[in-house]
Amino acid sequence: MRIGIYGYGNIGRGVECAVRQNADTELAGVFTRRDPASLQTRTGAPVYAAADAVKFADQIDVMILCGGSATDLPVTTPELAALFNVVDSFDTHARIPEHFANVEKAAADAGKLALISGGWDPGMFSLNRLYASAILPEGKDYTFWGRGVSQGHSDAIRRVPGVRDARQYTVPIPAALEAVRSGSMPELTTRQKHLRECYVVAEEGADRAEIERRIKTMPNYFDEYDTTVTFITEGEMQRDHAALPHGGFVIRTGRTGLELEHTHTIEYRLTLDSNPEFTANVLVALARAVNRMHARGRTGCVTVFDVAPADLSPLTPEALRAHML
Amino acid sequence: MRIGIYGYGNIGRGVECAVRQNADTELAGVFTRRDPASLQTRTGAPVYAAADAVKFADQIDVMILCGGSATDLPVTTPELAALFNVVDSFDTHARIPEHFANVEKAAADAGKLALISGGWDPGMFSLNRLYASAILPEGKDYTFWGRGVSQGHSDAIRRVPGVRDARQYTVPIPAALEAVRSGSMPELTTRQKHLRECYVVAEEGADRAEIERRIKTMPNYFDEYDTTVTFITEGEMQRDHAALPHGGFVIRTGRTGLELEHTHTIEYRLTLDSNPEFTANVLVALARAVNRMHARGRTGCVTVFDVAPADLSPLTPEALRAHML
Repeated sequence: MRIGIYGYGNIGRGVECAVRQNADTELAGVFTRRDPASLQTRTGAPVYAAADAVKFADQIDVMILCGGSATDLPVTTPELAALFNVVDSFDTHARIPEHFANVEKAAADAGKLALISGGWDPGMFSLNRLYASAILPEGKDYTFWGRGVSQGHSDAIRRVPGVRDARQYTVPIPAALEAVRSGSMPELTTRQKHLRECYVVAEEGADRAEIERRIKTMPNYFDEYDTTVTFITEGEMQRDHAALPHGGFVIRTGRTGLELEHTHTIEYRLTLDSNPEFTANVLVALARAVNRMHARGRTGCVTVFDVAPADLSPLTPEALRAHML
Repeated sequence: MRIGIYGYGNIGRGVECAVRQNADTELAGVFTRRDPASLQTRTGAPVYAAADAVKFADQIDVMILCGGSATDLPVTTPELAALFNVVDSFDTHARIPEHFANVEKAAADAGKLALISGGWDPGMFSLNRLYASAILPEGKDYTFWGRGVSQGHSDAIRRVPGVRDARQYTVPIPAALEAVRSGSMPELTTRQKHLRECYVVAEEGADRAEIERRIKTMPNYFDEYDTTVTFITEGEMQRDHAALPHGGFVIRTGRTGLELEHTHTIEYRLTLDSNPEFTANVLVALARAVNRMHARGRTGCVTVFDVAPADLSPLTPEALRAHML
């Protein structure tokens, strides 16, 4: 299976590594809007201009779109789905129906198959919400994120005057997790579920008290949370906060029995050293499924909900039943 | 969707309760090999003779087969798959390929769809092994069971001379769980992963030391484990050990990155008050999927690996994308 990478940021670099772990995949090339000559890939994979992608229509089985959800993917996924089978990691939850409709039209018209919103949330977390709610209809589910770096919140802090650099960790609160696991189905406020830890490098002479006040009162981002702000040096930022860990929990508790006398807990937990590399690995497994589903005649737009799990694995159905069932 | 229950043990009673939780399902009847007049269902559902099931071929969309894996299902699943769409919970892992082949032939010949080996292991645990291994090819996975009652091990103890009743709990060892979660990918022996706790009611005058010795040295069941044996009264057995809790963990750790420098952990955990009721709830969700897949023309035999997750949910694809993705 020949994979293309469209966009060479953190996720694109992760896909490049992931392809090396999967014997049935090979990397056809990396496509970038930068000058291809200026870009050195991690594995020496060839780099082409994004505008030339159309020339590779016959040489790529699935193009993995590694742009951002804010402005890139709403445009590039429908565009590229007219040329290739594609997988993207569009993660603006509220705009998924609109994105789906646009991509569905483009892919169906071209006879291609597109999978949108792959990754872990949306993605593996969504799958676990679906499975758990189908199994335990009388229940309640909870998603916790972290401990991990939120890029959006880190960016928001960087826009505060006097801030040179910032890293924000979202941290699930252990007492909330335990309350959920107990099966008591608590109602939890935003503040009860997560803390926000901020590490900030201030400009020289900046008013630190004012920076802290501005962060903690920032609407939507921080005002509904208990937030800590710690000032560090640029050296400490590079030494201690260069990685992009993330993860979290999807937990559903539900009741069964004639009088709902039995409680059950289903918990799915991810602990990730590198958010973009894990996301990339999910995208490559989804690309395998897209390639197989397209070969069986499926076209249009799908999500993880539409993918039979067997299609994600390099193993044959017989091997899966014999060794993994 | 009209559901039939074939066999009225713990799982059959669980399906009866589960149907009440799912607005799109109704119970057509319970089929038993006992005298139907002798059987009172929990919800007042009608009871019919198993031999009369053939008369209901047009009145049942999916028959859920609730017999045992040792002797019932190898015979009844192929038989019933010639008449109905069926779901079973066949759980003898080593014999799944043989069972699949038998059921595939019967169902395909009859134009019906059969799903075998539903439940949680095989079932939800299998799905999590598959998803995790597809996402993290360079890794290792571990399944832990418990704390929960093993019926097979309880039965084995009951066959020891001088034992009137017994209950065996399989208990995962916390240190092993922590070693796995650390990402160090340890090699663990059978003894390092699980303890076996046995609660035994002895016959009056029985040689308790001899019973304990016989249990602890029993090949395949106990000899490779650290086993505790506690003698209790019949009253204590009824008071403290009547429930059938179970659960466990599927954990995969894997590495990504150019030099495999990043470690990730995927953990799926079930904590179940009632093993048969949870299994029953999984079977009802799978019955929904079987009904839909058959309506789209699918016939033959499938497993959880072949079911697109969306087919398990009563929600529409649009609602799933808008609210659960």
